[in-house]
Amino acid sequence: MRAVTLKPGERVDDLLTGDLKIIQSDEVFRFSLDAVLLARFASVPSRGRILDLCSGNGIIPILLATRTPAPIDAVEIQERLCDMAERSVRLNGLENRIRILHEDLRSCHRVLGQGKYDLVTVNPPYLKACPDTSRNPHRALARHEIACTLKDVIAACSRLVKFGGRVAMVHRPARLAELMQLLRESRLEPKRLRFVHPRAGGEANMVLVEAVSGGGAELRVLPPLVVYDGNNEYCRELLDIYYGKAGELA
Amino acid sequence: MRAVTLKPGERVDDLLTGDLKIIQSDEVFRFSLDAVLLARFASVPSRGRILDLCSGNGIIPILLATRTPAPIDAVEIQERLCDMAERSVRLNGLENRIRILHEDLRSCHRVLGQGKYDLVTVNPPYLKACPDTSRNPHRALARHEIACTLKDVIAACSRLVKFGGRVAMVHRPARLAELMQLLRESRLEPKRLRFVHPRAGGEANMVLVEAVSGGGAELRVLPPLVVYDGNNEYCRELLDIYYGKAGELA
Repeated sequence: MRAVTLKPGERVDDLLTGDLKIIQSDEVFRFSLDAVLLARFASVPSRGRILDLCSGNGIIPILLATRTPAPIDAVEIQERLCDMAERSVRLNGLENRIRILHEDLRSCHRVLGQGKYDLVTVNPPYLKACPDTSRNPHRALARHEIACTLKDVIAACSRLVKFGGRVAMVHRPARLAELMQLLRESRLEPKRLRFVHPRAGGEANMVLVEAVSGGGAELRVLPPLVVYDGNNEYCRELLDIYYGKAGELA
Repeated sequence: MRAVTLKPGERVDDLLTGDLKIIQSDEVFRFSLDAVLLARFASVPSRGRILDLCSGNGIIPILLATRTPAPIDAVEIQERLCDMAERSVRLNGLENRIRILHEDLRSCHRVLGQGKYDLVTVNPPYLKACPDTSRNPHRALARHEIACTLKDVIAACSRLVKFGGRVAMVHRPARLAELMQLLRESRLEPKRLRFVHPRAGGEANMVLVEAVSGGGAELRVLPPLVVYDGNNEYCRELLDIYYGKAGELA
């Protein structure tokens, strides 16, 4: 573990998996369960190249690095978050495997090339832009479609992924129909869905989607993932996923 | 209960709800769990008009008649099944509430008019047409996209439903992405999804979808419905739905 400088309001959190740490800040950016579940859900290639869009403080590339030796690029539009992500990468000694790029996903293909990635992951802003999102600009950009719309995100995924490569996303079920339509219009065929339900017997509040560029139309809907048990504690499967013990995880 | 004539190979099954009976035949047509779940899932208007497409032996209109006094039209392309459905309607004394029409869903708007129905239900053929579907023509037409494709079905729903009315379908999850895209392209906005999993912890093998004509984009994903428990018996909730005891059912 290296020493890095923290800025005001920042703290180092333990990811409780593979001895990893991450720099966070309540004012600027904290990762959420959504990002962790996406990093565990994506089908990770053992070779090839991986790209994470809307990367925030770099939580997804750092978690993906526990699952594959493949090099990972991460694109984030906020300079403040790129700086935070870069220090977290150094803190974990991952600077030879993860590259943080301060870029706009709408134009980053000019730097990164088209169709170069085997896997593109993205945890995009979920909410439509609205007038009262100006109070905290860092959080507003991460949560609301201010710097990019869902259409922009999917167009970027489609440009950046290889033919036959995968795109893994997390989003709100409320937007699923639009998401599926946009994916198919961009020749990204949805192949795996997993719904996340806060409680057994309750509606889903999150959906994990994996699409294949140029894939055939045949979708699998995985067993639902339930977050909390009757005692308001994380369910066993959620804990196993969270701490990297489940399924194909390294 | 009236007396009706059975044809060779036909039998009368008890629907175990509201004293209803239905004529079935192993060679020609038997209803499946899918149809029962759709008849229970659809949001049924207390007034207005209801239409069932791909109606088979009339299982869905007969079950819907237990939930609403609204008049129900049913369209079926196979004359043999229309005849079976008409006799089941008479058997249950429902001839004043259910009308069976021997029509093609691609052209039935010429008889039924455009935009006249508050609810359209449909349990369409799930499978693509393929060469080995010719052995049993009745079952082949009900199961395979021979007489109509999914696109035809959704175009028909869109033509026949009122603006603001509902369309409720059941299909295989494998086709969900295509289904969502076709619905949105026909201005039918998916609003409620419910996945049916044969077993807890297993993938879904059925999906119930409700869309609203001209509705706003906001989808709810309901709790998963599990069919069998650990002893291979129907789960409690499934039994309640099957026998009409659950939720809004009459």
